[in-house]
Amino acid sequence: MIKFFEKDPYAPIQYSYEVSKILHSAKSDFQEIIVVENPHFGKMLILDGVVQLTERDEFFYHEMLVHVVMHAHPNPKKVVVIGGGDGGAVREVLKHDSVEKVYFIEIDEEVINASKKFFPSVACGMNDSRVEIKCMDGAEFVKDRDGDIDIVIVDSTDIIGFAKSLFTVEFFKSVKDCMTDEGMFVSLSESLHFHKDIVIEVQEEMKLIFPVVDLYTACLTTYAGNWWTFSAASKKHDLREMRRPYKIDTKVYSDEIHQQCFMPPKMYDKLMKRKLDW
Amino acid sequence: MIKFFEKDPYAPIQYSYEVSKILHSAKSDFQEIIVVENPHFGKMLILDGVVQLTERDEFFYHEMLVHVVMHAHPNPKKVVVIGGGDGGAVREVLKHDSVEKVYFIEIDEEVINASKKFFPSVACGMNDSRVEIKCMDGAEFVKDRDGDIDIVIVDSTDIIGFAKSLFTVEFFKSVKDCMTDEGMFVSLSESLHFHKDIVIEVQEEMKLIFPVVDLYTACLTTYAGNWWTFSAASKKHDLREMRRPYKIDTKVYSDEIHQQCFMPPKMYDKLMKRKLDW
Repeated sequence: MIKFFEKDPYAPIQYSYEVSKILHSAKSDFQEIIVVENPHFGKMLILDGVVQLTERDEFFYHEMLVHVVMHAHPNPKKVVVIGGGDGGAVREVLKHDSVEKVYFIEIDEEVINASKKFFPSVACGMNDSRVEIKCMDGAEFVKDRDGDIDIVIVDSTDIIGFAKSLFTVEFFKSVKDCMTDEGMFVSLSESLHFHKDIVIEVQEEMKLIFPVVDLYTACLTTYAGNWWTFSAASKKHDLREMRRPYKIDTKVYSDEIHQQCFMPPKMYDKLMKRKLDW
Repeated sequence: MIKFFEKDPYAPIQYSYEVSKILHSAKSDFQEIIVVENPHFGKMLILDGVVQLTERDEFFYHEMLVHVVMHAHPNPKKVVVIGGGDGGAVREVLKHDSVEKVYFIEIDEEVINASKKFFPSVACGMNDSRVEIKCMDGAEFVKDRDGDIDIVIVDSTDIIGFAKSLFTVEFFKSVKDCMTDEGMFVSLSESLHFHKDIVIEVQEEMKLIFPVVDLYTACLTTYAGNWWTFSAASKKHDLREMRRPYKIDTKVYSDEIHQQCFMPPKMYDKLMKRKLDW
């Protein structure tokens, strides 16, 4: 039996997966891109040794990343997706009829190509006429916009290496400036179990820039640490409230989950005071 | 570097952990008992190749197993803990002043001994004068009681092998009969990510016996599948309502988490109709 051992130097548990087939193995200018097949999870996309998605469970992450801000916003028309070269976040954004334009900014074209070839059910939104793909640094893209964007979604690799530029105060400032007055922003912010300090740091940095910052979670099984956090920010509106009815087709996100996924107030307060004791 | 590779034949991901020291390795009449030390998680208890607890994160599971029913019940005095030979569940039960008696029923005395020796912070409640330890099959214990128990808590190994007797309709019937009219019951019921069918089956079987059955979850990082479920049942009272104030010392459970941990109604309905699509 062939096995793939994940190479996440920041996780105290190492995950490994049975490999029934190696479908793709290449090195782009940015990272090593591997696609394998696993009996349970189906095809798996692995970047620099870390699992980014599996066919079977990718929707947990993509739905939870995208639909919370998309329902908190009153009328999202122009959306920027940074990273997420697989196309999963773009696919979810396009489920919303209000959307007129998606700027899909992925630094590594090879990830887009691999996804189109091996993950058609994930990449399926990329050819939609509303989508404009740009292979460039997302931090550069938002710098040059001026106030017309409704929502910015960051779907990056872990907060190390070249993704670091997407987690700086400077970047958050550019994001804020590129958006309308009702603009909203969401980004992954690692695991509450393993990386509580990173979660706090991302929240603190966002608060330097945005008047409304919040935190919600989902339990993901193929990302080490599992209790995954999403840091969301807004220029005006509270993010816990839904401003549009839930009527899209999803597997795990729903109006019920929107209400339930945010960290409750007292727990949030404890977290930010570094008093959650683990 | 020494590594421990978990042997869970039902998990499609294999977990492995660095081992800085092997502290104990023995075979009881029931299972293989191993204790190792890991740089991140501290000491780890491993039964038949599956991680049961780590010093660092055991409280997530123990608090969530115990405190939901303990707060839903108006006045729990007599509590039965079946399994959980490490003592973690007993420790949590004893945090409640109302408790007068804990029957601690563990089939394998060797687990109790290993925990006393290697996990004093987990086993610490075992010497409390309110605790009566009996090394026997929990299913046998509840058969012989007659209606004086307030709460029954099952903290077993996975629903395979000798723990199977704790997941039968016959056992649930005995549990119901051993309790007062306000009696409540809780048991682990595996992972929503990996073992949805088992979750449904446990719920369905409990519903054959109890008028009130519910489901809540927590995200645990050292149990494969992570999105861990707890199946709770009651002879009378709804389980989502707290009937006693939250005033004990906990790290993750709280009155807020009590409200948030239950599966929301529409999602629960979808699950039970086998329409959750993963």
